[in-house]
Amino acid sequence: ERIPFNVKGISSIEDISILRITGGGLIGGFDILHRIFKVLAERNINVILITQGSSEYSLCLAVLPKQTKIAKNVIEQELKNEIRDNQIKEVLIENDLSIIAVVGEDMRHTIGIAGKIFQTMGENGVNLVAIAQGSSELNISMVIHKKDLSKALNVLHTKIFKPNKIECNLFLAGPGLIGSNVLKILEKEIKKYPDDSNIKFKLIGLADIKGYTFNKNGINISNWKSFINKNVIPRNEKKFIDEIINLNLTNSVFVDCTAHDNYVQYYEKLLSSNISVVTPNKIANTSSFELFEKLKDITKNKKSKFKYSANVGAGTPMISVLQDLVAMGDRIHKIEGVFSGTLSYIFNNLKEGKKFSEIVRLAKEQGFTEPDPRDDLSGLDMARKLLILIREAGYKLEFKDIKVENLVPKEAQAAKNIDEFFEILKKFDDKFQMRRIKALKQGKVLCYIASCKNGKAKLGIEEIDSKHPFYNLYGNDNIVAFTTDYYNENPLTLRGRGAGAEFTAHSVFSDILRVLK
Amino acid sequence: ERIPFNVKGISSIEDISILRITGGGLIGGFDILHRIFKVLAERNINVILITQGSSEYSLCLAVLPKQTKIAKNVIEQELKNEIRDNQIKEVLIENDLSIIAVVGEDMRHTIGIAGKIFQTMGENGVNLVAIAQGSSELNISMVIHKKDLSKALNVLHTKIFKPNKIECNLFLAGPGLIGSNVLKILEKEIKKYPDDSNIKFKLIGLADIKGYTFNKNGINISNWKSFINKNVIPRNEKKFIDEIINLNLTNSVFVDCTAHDNYVQYYEKLLSSNISVVTPNKIANTSSFELFEKLKDITKNKKSKFKYSANVGAGTPMISVLQDLVAMGDRIHKIEGVFSGTLSYIFNNLKEGKKFSEIVRLAKEQGFTEPDPRDDLSGLDMARKLLILIREAGYKLEFKDIKVENLVPKEAQAAKNIDEFFEILKKFDDKFQMRRIKALKQGKVLCYIASCKNGKAKLGIEEIDSKHPFYNLYGNDNIVAFTTDYYNENPLTLRGRGAGAEFTAHSVFSDILRVLK
Repeated sequence: ERIPFNVKGISSIEDISILRITGGGLIGGFDILHRIFKVLAERNINVILITQGSSEYSLCLAVLPKQTKIAKNVIEQELKNEIRDNQIKEVLIENDLSIIAVVGEDMRHTIGIAGKIFQTMGENGVNLVAIAQGSSELNISMVIHKKDLSKALNVLHTKIFKPNKIECNLFLAGPGLIGSNVLKILEKEIKKYPDDSNIKFKLIGLADIKGYTFNKNGINISNWKSFINKNVIPRNEKKFIDEIINLNLTNSVFVDCTAHDNYVQYYEKLLSSNISVVTPNKIANTSSFELFEKLKDITKNKKSKFKYSANVGAGTPMISVLQDLVAMGDRIHKIEGVFSGTLSYIFNNLKEGKKFSEIVRLAKEQGFTEPDPRDDLSGLDMARKLLILIREAGYKLEFKDIKVENLVPKEAQAAKNIDEFFEILKKFDDKFQMRRIKALKQGKVLCYIASCKNGKAKLGIEEIDSKHPFYNLYGNDNIVAFTTDYYNENPLTLRGRGAGAEFTAHSVFSDILRVLK
Repeated sequence: ERIPFNVKGISSIEDISILRITGGGLIGGFDILHRIFKVLAERNINVILITQGSSEYSLCLAVLPKQTKIAKNVIEQELKNEIRDNQIKEVLIENDLSIIAVVGEDMRHTIGIAGKIFQTMGENGVNLVAIAQGSSELNISMVIHKKDLSKALNVLHTKIFKPNKIECNLFLAGPGLIGSNVLKILEKEIKKYPDDSNIKFKLIGLADIKGYTFNKNGINISNWKSFINKNVIPRNEKKFIDEIINLNLTNSVFVDCTAHDNYVQYYEKLLSSNISVVTPNKIANTSSFELFEKLKDITKNKKSKFKYSANVGAGTPMISVLQDLVAMGDRIHKIEGVFSGTLSYIFNNLKEGKKFSEIVRLAKEQGFTEPDPRDDLSGLDMARKLLILIREAGYKLEFKDIKVENLVPKEAQAAKNIDEFFEILKKFDDKFQMRRIKALKQGKVLCYIASCKNGKAKLGIEEIDSKHPFYNLYGNDNIVAFTTDYYNENPLTLRGRGAGAEFTAHSVFSDILRVLK
């Protein structure tokens, strides 16, 4: 990552212009060059940078803006015959440019220096108008657009003088349960810099339900609540996003911790503008397959990344393990999983003979469920997670193609409030018990499983025996099993805790780190 | 990965020289430039490339070698006063250089082009002596050393005209059980190119127990046995490695499928020479911690990678999942695992009440064990795998620090042959049964587990209950459980088949793909 040489300094000239002299007359027209430099010298015009590539009908000279017009005039005057004969074209001028020069020692003998410098520019969206690196060991000069100068100087300084240091500019929407935990992690990380961390995180923008705010120097995270309250601009997602893009900061990451879809429509624009998107929000990946594919395609040739590890399994790296399998040429034939901490907890307790309604109540009391437990019991959230894994596995599938067994009995679906729901649910305890005992007699247990095999995706209660990798699942662990070309007899199984706002926040933070890698 | 613009062509001049004119006189010495070009024009000296960076006391001119001396003479003659006054230094000449020019359309308006071109050069170890990119849209010129020209042209052509295509040059040592399976996979992959694969694999070098051979156009893999028999150069590891380095090919990967340590001493040299090393061989990672650390350090700032996924868990991505946890800032407090398909099989069958010696015999008959099953039962191979995970987790540990319970009874260790070994082992069947029954009474099963907690690493038989993630392990699955800051109540568990030459070969091949990513 670092640029491995002894740089003495980075110098820049904020305002320069380029004169571009083109035409076949430059090739073999041995005397044209000296005539150009002669007339420039006569007028005391300082040529700051010269480049002429091989096999090129073009000479490029950088001069100070105040000398541009006169330089153009004297060159055109001197070459008026060649211009008349179409050997040389009119001298073109480009303004609003800057020069950055990286000056160092032994730059020539270290491989890859130029590549790393220019790569840094490219990754940060800085266009190089002209480049000159002489064979001396001293200088790499770049002509860039003036609007990019401060960003370019910033990233070069960081890359060269703090070779292991990175600056990361964050924009977070939705400081709710997960979002506020992400902010807590960031608060700790910011304190670690520079001694115990190489990444300088700055929270530049923050948006909540009421509005948004920016601080280019970084919002004081310890105090984000009062900062946003004091400085709020009324809610406007479009303006918030536009401002993020206009700021044009290096290593920008937009973190969508909202549960709604207001920002999803802007992911594409952000990613196209070199801004990464990190989110635990499943909406983008579970909308149309078209959108899923489009977001993947955009990031293929971009530095910006779209990361959503927390979409499935909270923090368990189910998505990344699956992505790796696919990338290595393995084919996924079957996916099975329990992707809900709540449903895992319910069925793990059911094994021990407890009443279904009691378990659900206990889960709610411990905060394992949504405010209305029916949102967990419906299986829909787990179905969305299955959909994401299926798509990652390379299959084109829509949400409507998944068959979902709703654990909420029809009668209870209509219940007007939670109390009424629990009253109705009690009536179904015996039904669940009978099902459990029937399975037990065959040495099996019940498990609510999401699966996809031969293109058929479904969620429902299954009876599994002791050889099934989910047999001794417990607590609120999530689990996934991939059956593939290579894991054909026994699946590859990954298991870990699948719930907790702190845990999910760590997963979001890990995605931010992955983006920076 | 691709270079996103319309390149019309790549041209090169094989043989050029550089004249370097330096000195303070160039700054503000407005008339020096035109005097230089005047005298060059008078002598009909064609200046192929010019660069002068900003704030640089240096002008760099590329000319044809036959004109170098005269160019130097006329310039020095013209500037003799400036040279006398130390305003300009003696003109320096550099020979044995080439120029490559990438000529295209709209190169200027696509961000990051220069970076990608120069990055490609750097990654392939091509040093850039001088660069000129004018502000026209036509040309990026690079002066490089002549020895690098063919490699540079090759990688640029691939990168630009086959933007998604990669060439990978492989060198394989040890075409034994795993190695020959790697070759089988490669044979299939080679046939896929270019329609179904973007990677053009070439097996350039092959070494077996008798000797080695090279074919720069790629050895016909379908026929590798007869090829190496016909073309063998007597065994000499050092010469084999030196030749790999001298070939200086792009995307070179050395695949060490031997079971011995003859090549381990060359890993460092290979990695330093931009050649990746992929191996299922555990020797490098289980020797001194110093070597483990050194190999990690070398690849930090190199394009070359050291990959050894098959070291632990055959193909199960235990190492990569662990590396990801560590990279994301999680801390590993405890590692537990079963890393031997053989020992997994033995204890999974023991659960069912079979006799220990019978299970071992069955395992041997099915080819699950080493030729001498004592090599599995000793626990040493599994201890080596634990050592690697511990080191990946960030702990400094040596092999001798691991306490290993040898499952081979003392008496049987001394047995002179396998038959005698089995005879003695039978005597211990009752002892294993008693241990099993004692555990069963507490609802537990026996499992041979490798673990590390609080810096203490050990391997031995443990009694585990149904809440332990290894309780219902079966077949010859491998399993690992990481207890970390975030996976603190229930560990993160990864399970999958842990044996099979084909499976291990796929893991080796996956590492080759990872290197190319």
